Amino acid sequence: MTLLDLDNDPICLVPGFSFAAMAAGIKKNGKPDLALIAADGPVNVAAVYTRNLVRAAPVLVSEERTKRGTLRAVLINAGNANACTGKPGLEAARATTLAVSKTLGCPVAEIAPASTGVIGAQLPTAKILAAIPSLTSALAPDGAFDVARAIMTTDQWPKVARAQFAVGRKRATVLGIAKGAGMIHPDMATTLGFLVTDAGASPALLRAILKRAVDATFNSISVDGDTSTNDTIVLMASGLAGPVRANTKEAKRLEDAITEVLGDLGESIVRDGEGAQHVARIEVVGAKSDADARRAAKTIATSPLVKTAMHGKDPNWGRILAAAGRSGARFDPAQAELTIEGHVVLKRGLPLGAEAEKPAAQAMLSPKYTIRLRLGRGPGAAHYLTCDLGSSYVAVNADYRS
Amino acid sequence: MTLLDLDNDPICLVPGFSFAAMAAGIKKNGKPDLALIAADGPVNVAAVYTRNLVRAAPVLVSEERTKRGTLRAVLINAGNANACTGKPGLEAARATTLAVSKTLGCPVAEIAPASTGVIGAQLPTAKILAAIPSLTSALAPDGAFDVARAIMTTDQWPKVARAQFAVGRKRATVLGIAKGAGMIHPDMATTLGFLVTDAGASPALLRAILKRAVDATFNSISVDGDTSTNDTIVLMASGLAGPVRANTKEAKRLEDAITEVLGDLGESIVRDGEGAQHVARIEVVGAKSDADARRAAKTIATSPLVKTAMHGKDPNWGRILAAAGRSGARFDPAQAELTIEGHVVLKRGLPLGAEAEKPAAQAMLSPKYTIRLRLGRGPGAAHYLTCDLGSSYVAVNADYRS
Repeated sequence: MTLLDLDNDPICLVPGFSFAAMAAGIKKNGKPDLALIAADGPVNVAAVYTRNLVRAAPVLVSEERTKRGTLRAVLINAGNANACTGKPGLEAARATTLAVSKTLGCPVAEIAPASTGVIGAQLPTAKILAAIPSLTSALAPDGAFDVARAIMTTDQWPKVARAQFAVGRKRATVLGIAKGAGMIHPDMATTLGFLVTDAGASPALLRAILKRAVDATFNSISVDGDTSTNDTIVLMASGLAGPVRANTKEAKRLEDAITEVLGDLGESIVRDGEGAQHVARIEVVGAKSDADARRAAKTIATSPLVKTAMHGKDPNWGRILAAAGRSGARFDPAQAELTIEGHVVLKRGLPLGAEAEKPAAQAMLSPKYTIRLRLGRGPGAAHYLTCDLGSSYVAVNADYRS
Repeated sequence: MTLLDLDNDPICLVPGFSFAAMAAGIKKNGKPDLALIAADGPVNVAAVYTRNLVRAAPVLVSEERTKRGTLRAVLINAGNANACTGKPGLEAARATTLAVSKTLGCPVAEIAPASTGVIGAQLPTAKILAAIPSLTSALAPDGAFDVARAIMTTDQWPKVARAQFAVGRKRATVLGIAKGAGMIHPDMATTLGFLVTDAGASPALLRAILKRAVDATFNSISVDGDTSTNDTIVLMASGLAGPVRANTKEAKRLEDAITEVLGDLGESIVRDGEGAQHVARIEVVGAKSDADARRAAKTIATSPLVKTAMHGKDPNWGRILAAAGRSGARFDPAQAELTIEGHVVLKRGLPLGAEAEKPAAQAMLSPKYTIRLRLGRGPGAAHYLTCDLGSSYVAVNADYRS
């Protein structure tokens, strides 16, 4: 676990990058809500965005700009998603990033906007424009945690993770900052993730690595099925630690580091689900294909009945098996085997009884455990992270206007 | 609304059918748990079953028997789903129906078993065998409500509905009995439905009518995506009111009556969702195709965030639009229009603001209202019934072992 915590590791430096955050008056509670991540000059970039048809203005603008392959900075606000805001929303995203580009002295196409918060309200452009001079002058190499705090909405804690690896004789760093309170907030303009590294890589290599790393991490937490209007992950590489070329040992190390950082951030998001007390890793193995395994794992991970059973610490194999059965995965239920943290509760499709369930129920008291479903003897495997569904979820989502 | 209630309409007679129920000791609380619906002789039958890969023993046995096209009786128990019970489960389903067939004096292939309740426990065959002589001797034409009560599990009320129509100069009746507490119990071996009519029709006509009627009703409540291990709907036709042939006025009337009965039962099941205070009809229109409209309607109807917003009486168009956006339906969000009980809250993809939402929020105080999403100008339309998601859902499902 490389997830960082402010008290133990307050300074996260990545050569070539600086960070700033402040309160611009977008959040009603007066907390920090505007952040900037800037490279010292234009750097290579890759990004992934929500697959929802309903896409926020900053997603449309960022996508167009990041696909060019170079970027200077990301301007992020919380408290307003700038989604379902029509042309004025696009204009607001363009105007605020234009102001940043003028202050930094670079083309506006090198500034990507990102927003999270309430959907359907116009961005308070004037407040943001007024704040930008102070924001840019506050840029400092050690401001990553300030950014992490400023982009929080319903998050309970800031999320920063880091991994390091060798590039030649140098040590390179991947630093990640994310926000999101998990799949229990699937359409609240949820997930933003920003990664910076001092390793160097071409935009094409960054894209390939980011796609694979996101599939293995953020797309395997239950956020996946519920892409929001604003989901955005941006990866920027300054290259100051030296170049990494495709198909080398270093490229593998860079990918491992990025996957590790995204994995830690993703797990932190799942743990932060409102009312969540348990994180379960759903593993499906022995499927006819990886796609089948993924279908089953996703259906189990998003089943409200499985998630409430987790909340009740109930090794309810019936709900898990029934979820797999309706997932579309092809398997013979008579061959199914289910273990919870290594304790077998179902074998050849038949339950082993109350005695066998006792140690499984005991394991479900833990904050983290693994539910492993074997569908058969096929080569397919997949996993998902999910959390339990508690009653505070209902309270938060019935009362909170996202 | 033809849903019947015991106090106002205690006797539901359908010529050619009789009903019985009793407590056989399957439910722990000693309530009635065994029921029999019997025709006076072999009658034509059609049935639909769960599409879950994990199928209970009674589903396997019933499907084999009903596909022959004739049936004499259905033996139903609550308190035990006889699911995930392997060979002993199949033997129990066969042994108990064999006992009924001997008492009624018909081939065992004319008796269909149906079960609902706890998954993974063996059926208490001896208790059922001991009860069958009393059960068959209790058969009476006016016992439909007794059956409806005996097959309840987490249901709060018995569900019986009726529709009548003319066959020539005679009046024919369709009577339906169902159990289920809605999509919030998707894998609790939930939905059983039994329809009897004194109209006569071939098995082929019954099958065609039942399929269409189920698609328009039970498959359009949020139970659909969450087929259980035991879902079963059986339609038996005695023919005593006269024959109905395909492609006639009478066939249309029979289909309308069956659709009406299933619609009323389906709505009653949604209303019975634990903690549910509101039923919403989700209508999607203007889609490129019916399939697209159905994708959007189903995703909206099953979205926890939409359902918690319903609970909070919040006209949260952002969650509804975002659910449609991730549903796979093809549409231009900039053309979307949303009304809640006729009040427009979103037009051309843009919210109309707080004032426009006030009457919509007011309408959401009602026990039933319509949410209508127009995706564009296409011909596709579909609807779904859903209910709100309250905190008692979590309590029930975290504590109840299904």
